[in-house]
Amino acid sequence: MRVIFNEEMKAVADDLDRMAQDVRNAINLAGDALLRRDVEAAQAVIDGDARIDELEASVIDQCVRLLAKQTPVATDLRVVVSTLRLAATFERMGDLAKHIAESARCAYPESPLPADAVEVFSQMQDFLSETADNVVAMLSDRDARIADRVIRNDDKLDAMHHRTFELALSDDWDGTNQQLIDVVLLGRFMERIGDHAVSAARRVVFIVSGFDPSKEPGPDEDGSVE
Amino acid sequence: MRVIFNEEMKAVADDLDRMAQDVRNAINLAGDALLRRDVEAAQAVIDGDARIDELEASVIDQCVRLLAKQTPVATDLRVVVSTLRLAATFERMGDLAKHIAESARCAYPESPLPADAVEVFSQMQDFLSETADNVVAMLSDRDARIADRVIRNDDKLDAMHHRTFELALSDDWDGTNQQLIDVVLLGRFMERIGDHAVSAARRVVFIVSGFDPSKEPGPDEDGSVE
Repeated sequence: MRVIFNEEMKAVADDLDRMAQDVRNAINLAGDALLRRDVEAAQAVIDGDARIDELEASVIDQCVRLLAKQTPVATDLRVVVSTLRLAATFERMGDLAKHIAESARCAYPESPLPADAVEVFSQMQDFLSETADNVVAMLSDRDARIADRVIRNDDKLDAMHHRTFELALSDDWDGTNQQLIDVVLLGRFMERIGDHAVSAARRVVFIVSGFDPSKEPGPDEDGSVE
Repeated sequence: MRVIFNEEMKAVADDLDRMAQDVRNAINLAGDALLRRDVEAAQAVIDGDARIDELEASVIDQCVRLLAKQTPVATDLRVVVSTLRLAATFERMGDLAKHIAESARCAYPESPLPADAVEVFSQMQDFLSETADNVVAMLSDRDARIADRVIRNDDKLDAMHHRTFELALSDDWDGTNQQLIDVVLLGRFMERIGDHAVSAARRVVFIVSGFDPSKEPGPDEDGSVE
């Protein structure tokens, strides 16, 4: 199936694919920064964010030009409007990866995470890395089944995120307040990357099938963290 | 000055104004929930979020229909595309107010905040309340000067947000880990509401003047919190 079916949309689709790839790269490098204290990876994420922002601006410009040049039909329009929102979503995922990288750079040469928290954050990172692969694949293959998998998997990330709070509230917790602040913020950033991936996946399902899965009853994609 | 200059955009502009008013209401009620332990206010924010979501869906539908019906000229297009993004921004501000209300409801009949943190959160709430007034006014009066004020004021919120971390890291801090988690998350939610207000203000300046202030060199609107 093809998300971008309109020949005139080819250049925009390419930029959107590039954004997804850059975001995947940022997520993976942010994970290296966080879990391997790789400060060069952190810097690469921080420096690379400008390119994601530029790609978003390029996607917006091209979509606006496309809308101006053509009298769009219903399905074309749905794709253009969804493309605008996908670009905004990817831009935000890049920002969140940058926040993780900044936190790692700030704590360097230490880790911002206490030793006890490394395992659950590694699991969250593995999950986000796989999700980022799925986001790239669902776009480049125009595959709603992969998008559907991203949507259905999100509960797993929420469960891991919940474990970071359990850890911080357990009697065994002996981290500093700075570490607790970092655990809460890093967990939030990672959870939000997952939320945005779900939002992107819903948009791909909508483009491919015309069915909007966000209107299905289901858990709030950005539910309460309390 | 008129943000929405096109007669056909009148209904969309009305919905957008309604969104801004609902978001202002949600922000004020979330503040009552948080600072006055008003659990009915919390419930009102949580229940009211669906209407904000519906208004967003209505704005999107109307914008897509508008794009389909008309061959849009450059400025009309800029308004329609910016309107789509403003609606997404307001929807997100509503979500964040809901998160604050959920946190307050969860802690009820206690406050999620330790006594020492009430003052700085009250200041942040006053700031957001004034910002919400400005957001409503900049839209309904189509006034780029008010929008500009929202953009320029954001540093103040960042400074207050920074104080929440100083508080949590000071020797005087004697809150529980649950309180520290709440302080970090509530501070983050409030900071993000401010960021979204800035983003909305930039869009209003862009619509009114054609000048995009986000391309000006300046502090990252969602800068690192570390």
